Formats: sequence, structure tokens, C-alpha cells
Amino acid sequence: MSRTETDLVLVLSQAIEKNDFDNAFIALKGLRPIDVADALEQLEPTLCWRLLELLPNRAEIFSYFEPEEQVCFAREFPRASLAELVSEMPADERTDLFKRLDPSQRATLLPALAEEDRADIHKLSAYVEGTAGALMTSDYAALKQDMTVLQAMTYLREEAPDAETIYQAYVVDDQKCLLGVVSLRDLIISDLDKSVKDLMTSDVVSASAFDDQEDIAKKIARYDLLALPIVDKQGALIGIVTYDDAMDVVSEEATDDIHKSAGVSTIIGSIKGASIGLLYRKRVFWLVLLVFGNLFSGAGIAHFEDIIAANIVLVFFLPLLVDSGGNAGSQSATLMVRALATGEVVMRDWLYLIGREALVALALGCTMAAAVSILGYIRGDSTVALVLALSMVSIVMIGCMIGMSLPFILSKFNLDPASASAPLITSVCDATGVVIYLFIASLLLADLSIVPV
Amino acid sequence: MSRTETDLVLVLSQAIEKNDFDNAFIALKGLRPIDVADALEQLEPTLCWRLLELLPNRAEIFSYFEPEEQVCFAREFPRASLAELVSEMPADERTDLFKRLDPSQRATLLPALAEEDRADIHKLSAYVEGTAGALMTSDYAALKQDMTVLQAMTYLREEAPDAETIYQAYVVDDQKCLLGVVSLRDLIISDLDKSVKDLMTSDVVSASAFDDQEDIAKKIARYDLLALPIVDKQGALIGIVTYDDAMDVVSEEATDDIHKSAGVSTIIGSIKGASIGLLYRKRVFWLVLLVFGNLFSGAGIAHFEDIIAANIVLVFFLPLLVDSGGNAGSQSATLMVRALATGEVVMRDWLYLIGREALVALALGCTMAAAVSILGYIRGDSTVALVLALSMVSIVMIGCMIGMSLPFILSKFNLDPASASAPLITSVCDATGVVIYLFIASLLLADLSIVPV
Repeated sequence: MSRTETDLVLVLSQAIEKNDFDNAFIALKGLRPIDVADALEQLEPTLCWRLLELLPNRAEIFSYFEPEEQVCFAREFPRASLAELVSEMPADERTDLFKRLDPSQRATLLPALAEEDRADIHKLSAYVEGTAGALMTSDYAALKQDMTVLQAMTYLREEAPDAETIYQAYVVDDQKCLLGVVSLRDLIISDLDKSVKDLMTSDVVSASAFDDQEDIAKKIARYDLLALPIVDKQGALIGIVTYDDAMDVVSEEATDDIHKSAGVSTIIGSIKGASIGLLYRKRVFWLVLLVFGNLFSGAGIAHFEDIIAANIVLVFFLPLLVDSGGNAGSQSATLMVRALATGEVVMRDWLYLIGREALVALALGCTMAAAVSILGYIRGDSTVALVLALSMVSIVMIGCMIGMSLPFILSKFNLDPASASAPLITSVCDATGVVIYLFIASLLLADLSIVPV
Repeated sequence: MSRTETDLVLVLSQAIEKNDFDNAFIALKGLRPIDVADALEQLEPTLCWRLLELLPNRAEIFSYFEPEEQVCFAREFPRASLAELVSEMPADERTDLFKRLDPSQRATLLPALAEEDRADIHKLSAYVEGTAGALMTSDYAALKQDMTVLQAMTYLREEAPDAETIYQAYVVDDQKCLLGVVSLRDLIISDLDKSVKDLMTSDVVSASAFDDQEDIAKKIARYDLLALPIVDKQGALIGIVTYDDAMDVVSEEATDDIHKSAGVSTIIGSIKGASIGLLYRKRVFWLVLLVFGNLFSGAGIAHFEDIIAANIVLVFFLPLLVDSGGNAGSQSATLMVRALATGEVVMRDWLYLIGREALVALALGCTMAAAVSILGYIRGDSTVALVLALSMVSIVMIGCMIGMSLPFILSKFNLDPASASAPLITSVCDATGVVIYLFIASLLLADLSIVPV
């Protein structure tokens, strides 16, 4: 929290303790809901509730509380008050909160809610986290196609307080089947007696509730949609996902891919609030796997132990060379994994890309070979320099080929390309790098006596 | 392109060559602008233009062409036609195209544009890429505060075709100073004789044209804004950035961070279309730097060469141990860099986080030590196993501490935390890992004779 936020929380606490709500309101006046939420969630639950229950947009403010805080506060708030708050919340936020409550809290809360809200929660919470269904809200604006523009506008005016958005209105039939979409912009520029049917776009971009949230976000981004309607198998409209939720998904999915690239499994929830146990569990798998994976490098070294024993200078350059393969390979893999994830490249592009990568790798390898052979000449002699140069070029080229291909290979077998993490690439390149380096060394140094270090 | 898209392009080419525009239109009917653009940009420029000039929303379609394609096609289109197209394009898209044209193309195009459009391009193209100014459009809807709701609605109806959005209307005075914002939703639910001044929100979230695009996107995401007004130093409204552009920025910035984590410098533009030279230049810096950086590992090994010579089994485990430090450290760094980038953690959280990290690192290190000491016992003996276990715990703990702290240290010195790339962390951890491992080995193995491999 910034200093002003800390001051605000102090002012609020003092004001409430003195029952001085006027001063508390003045402090909060003009702040946006998320800013009010940031301040209120720092307060002790009872103090927080005393202020929250008096604010007109309390449900909106509460839905901006951090997820863990919402659960904490829900535990402390009086049951009837919580039920009232929950029923006023947006449908998707309400469902998210409900899913985080433990069974006893749910059992306490549910009976206090209206039948309609209970049914809505029941429906929305059935969807798996990470799908469109878990993201969507049922608070959409629906019109009938035989409505006139005037009737549609009147209806939207009434719906405005309850709908997530009225800027996109969905045209449905009596079975709630999605027939088309009409924007508020199109409505207000049209003559009042036109029918909705004439205005609407029938070819609606929609998605299924079981679609991955990443695909939802991509659709919304591609078509610059304000909201994406979600339909069931029969084509009936069951909810919408709005642009703001899609933006959060883009960020979440990027975070997940970034974590995967370092061998950290998917963490749902905040990093700051994560427990030691959770962080351990999400990280240990790849680390232990790679301990065993790195055995191949060790085995490669063991195979060439005689040449190492005879030329200890080789060990001096070992980390440098094998790391170069891993670094270059990681770069290639990272570029490809991200490009596949954003849809910028597709499987078909592989042949062109690998050809281009071979040339880039050659250029990089030669540059790095030049750098390392200078070091090799200083530390050893010209033969060592040659060994290093040849090894470097080969290691970098093969490293890049491995790094670039692995995401495509994984994708081909319907695995997540993001599993081609940097640690994995590095370990694979290490093993191949060790073998290449020591093999070249054994070819060129075999006849020589021990090279002084 | 998918198979249906390839078919579509084929159908279109054939239709146009036969001058059969009816068939071409039927093929395109009902497709959204971006889908039409995907098909048209595959056509040969002259064919493409023949179809494009007949489509009513041609400017919108053209702005969905890939940037490189836009420049290509701009070169081929007749000058007068191009000028017409460009003047119809949204202001931000038009400016982006203009910035990509070479000087001769600009010199050809500018005189053919209206004075107003020339001035607009001139103003918008002055902003540096990556700032709000380069992202914004000047096509916003502006109202006067003394307007009634009825007058405002009438005005917005007229502005609708030209404004990027009319869902957010900005209230300005005669000097164009931003006084407030009012949503179309609020307008339509209000009485027609109310004044805009009574409806508007005066506390407007806005930004400067020189703000980083990442901060713009964060603001839009935080406040769930449909559009963010951009003001100059005097507070005058100069443009808006809409949610769809913000979503693209979130994705771009994530891609940039992902690239940085692998030591690839910022690439502007597509990966698929990048030249060999560009890819080489963006990757070579870190790779060569790390070649020299890895010398420290080599020096560490050279220092302990006697113990290595006496115990070649140590070399067998060398890659495994030093890599573990790098892998664990990369995980820590990755988690922190991303959390800092999304604003989830701030500098102040460092002390708590490093304490927690120490415990997680201890747990991970012990698990990995157990794994490696089994291998050490099999390959060597119990002393080797002990050396490996102690080394592993120390290496992992120190690796995690380094990995977690480096982003904060960089941030403290106002450097980009994302420079704490995986290759950098790995190289630093390699050097420390080598020293720790061989030092522990020298302590415990010094008195023993050569351990058989």
C-alpha cells in the first residue's frame, strides 16, 4: 500500500471507532470502488462491515476485495448482511466467492439467499475453473427480435442497473436461442420504429461454456469484442464474458506460461499469499526430474574421463561451453513457445522457421566461437582454441535446433509446448554439449601429451 | 491459414479475374472485417484493391491487414485511392501506417490528404513508440457540460460513425480541458432535461501521453475502463486509448518479458517475419556476455583442479549440482520478476518474501539432496554422498536467495527487474555452485586417496 493508502486506513479506523461516519465518508468520497476496497480490506472485519453496510455500492466494492480477504470477511459478517451483500453482487463475482467458501459457510449462506440467486450460483459454479463457464456472468441484456428500437431502448433502460453491460444486447427467441446481437450504438442511431430484427447481426461470434478461458480471451482480442456470448450445445444463450475479464485472463495466462518456462507448475491464486507447502509442491517436480536428467551429462563426462584426466584445461571450459548450448537453445525455445501460444506461428511454419534458425544459430555460434577461442588460446594453445571453436559452433547450432523443435514436437503430440521449459532445454543441451565437446576434444587432443593448465 | 481460408482466397482470386464481383461478395458476406482482411491480404495487390475499393467498410478492413502487408499494398495502390483509404481509417491505425512508410511514400501520400488529416497524423506520429501517445486515437466524443441529456444524445448520434466509441463521452470546456466523463448508459437512463454537468463524473482517471503503454494498460485493467482519456500538461484532452488496444498491450508486454527472461532483447514486430540479421542482433549480446560470465565458473574449477584430478567422480556430478542451483534460482527469479511486473508484490514485501523463500529453498534442497546422495552412494561411496548432499542443500539455498533477490536489487537501482534473466541467474549460480561444491569436496575428500570412478 502507498503512504496515502496507509493514511486513509488510519483515518477510517479512527473515524469509525468514534462513530464519526461523516468523516469516514468524506475520506472515501470520490474514490473509485477498487480504491475503496483496497482501503477497507485493511480494516478489522467488524469495523469494515460498519462502514461497508452504509455505502450504496457496497456489493461492487466488496467484489473488488482480494479473494482471500473476501472469504475472511465473509466469515465475520452477520449472516443476514452477508446474504444481502451476496445477492447484490455481480453474478460471476458472487459465484467465485461461493466456490471459495468452505462447506459450512456455504450451508450457512445458501438458505438466506433468494431461490433465483441459489439457482444461479448452482448453475455457474458447476463449471471447471479455467473454462468460459467459470468466467461468465448471467447478467446479460436480452431482446426479442420483433421489438422495435423504441421498445428495445425502454427495456435496456430498465435493465441497466442489473446487467453487466447494456452496450451489447443479445437477441434471443422463446427458447433463449441466440439469434443475433445488436449494439446500443446501432440502436441509438436508428429510427425508433425499426425492428430489432433488421438491425441485428445474425452472424454472432460466440463460444461454448467448456472452451478454455485462453481461447475466450483470444476471440475477444481478435474481434475487439466488448462481450462474448456463451452458448450451450443447443445454441441457447447462457452467459457472457466481458472484455475486462478477458484482459485479466490474458495476464493470468501469460503469468502461467512464464512460470512454466522456469519449470514451475500452475499456481492458482496470488504468489504473495502462497504457502510454503504450495510453493514447494509446484516447484519440486521439475527440479528433482532434472537432477536425474542431468545424469546424462555426468554419464557423458564419465565416458570421456581419460581425456579429461589428461587435459584438465578442458574442465575449465566445460561450464562455459555447455551453458552456451543451453542459453542459445532456451532463447530459441522461448521465442517459439511464445509465438505458438499467441498464435503467431502454427505447426505448418516449422520448416521455414527451422531453416532460418539454422542460419541464425550459425551466425551466433561463429560469434561465440570467436570469443571463446581467444580465451582458449590464452589459457591453453591453438589446438585447445580449435577444439573450443568447433565445439562452440556445433553446440550452439544443435542447441538451437533442439530448442526450436521441442515446442513443435510437443505440440504435435498434443502436449503443451510450454513444457519445453528453459531448465528442460538446458539439461538436454547440457548432455549433448558435453558429448560433442569431449568427443571433439578426444579427436584433436588424443595424440598429445598432457597440456599444462 | 486454415483450409477454409485457403479455399476462400482461391474462390476470391478466380472470381475477381473473371470480373465476377457478385460471387466474390457472396464469399465475403457475413465475414467480420478481420477475417476479410486475412483473406484479402493473401491476394496479389492489384486484385486485392479491385475488391477492396468496392467494400463499404474498406478502411476498417485495411487497418486489420498485417503491418508489413499494409506497407506493401500501400506501395501498389493508386495514389488517390490510397489517400481516400487512409483518410477513412481510424486515427490511430492511420498514424501507425504512416510511421511505417518510407520517406518517399510519405511524400507521395501527404499532399493527397486533407489538411485536417495531415495535421492529425503530424500530431500523433510525434509520440515515441511504446507510449500512450503512440497508442491513442483522436477520434473521441466530446460534450459541453451545459448540454442537456437530449442535446448530448443528439450530438452522439451524429458523432457515432466517426468516433472510436460513443459509450464514453468526455466533457470538456472551450480550451478542451477535461472536466469529466459520462457514459452512454448513464445518459440513456436519465431524464432528457438533466444537464450533463449533473450526470458526469468529475474525478476522471486519465493519463499523460508520455506514460509508458504498460502503465496505461494497467490503469485500464485496474479500473475496468472502456477507454482511458489522455491529457496534456495543461489538462487538455488530446486522445483516448480503448480497451482493445490495452489488451494487445498486455499481450505484447508479456511477450517482451518472456523474451527478456531468456536473454532476448526487445523485438518490435512479428517473430515470423523477422530477418536473420534482426534475430542475430537481439540474441547475440547476452549470449556473448554469458560466455565471459561463465569464466568465473571455469576459474572456480581451475582453483580446485588438484581435488578434481584426484577425484574424477566429482566431475561426474558437476553438471547435475551446478544446474540444480541455476534451475532453482531461475524459478525464484521468474516468480519474483513476474510478480513485480504485474504489481502483485512491491519492494516493501522483500523481507517477508526472502524469509519464506529460505524455507521453501531448504525444503527443495533437502529433497534434491536426498535424490542426489543416493546416486552419490551408488557411484562413489558414503563420503561422496555426504559431499553431494551438503553441496546440494547449500547450492539450492544460495541459488534461490540469489534468484529471488536479484530482481529486487535491480528494481532498487531503477533497472528493469526482467533483466534478471534465466541465463544470467544460471551463470551466477553456476559460479557460486562450483565454488561451494568443490570447496566442500576439498574439505571432506582432501585426506583420502583417489576414489575409483
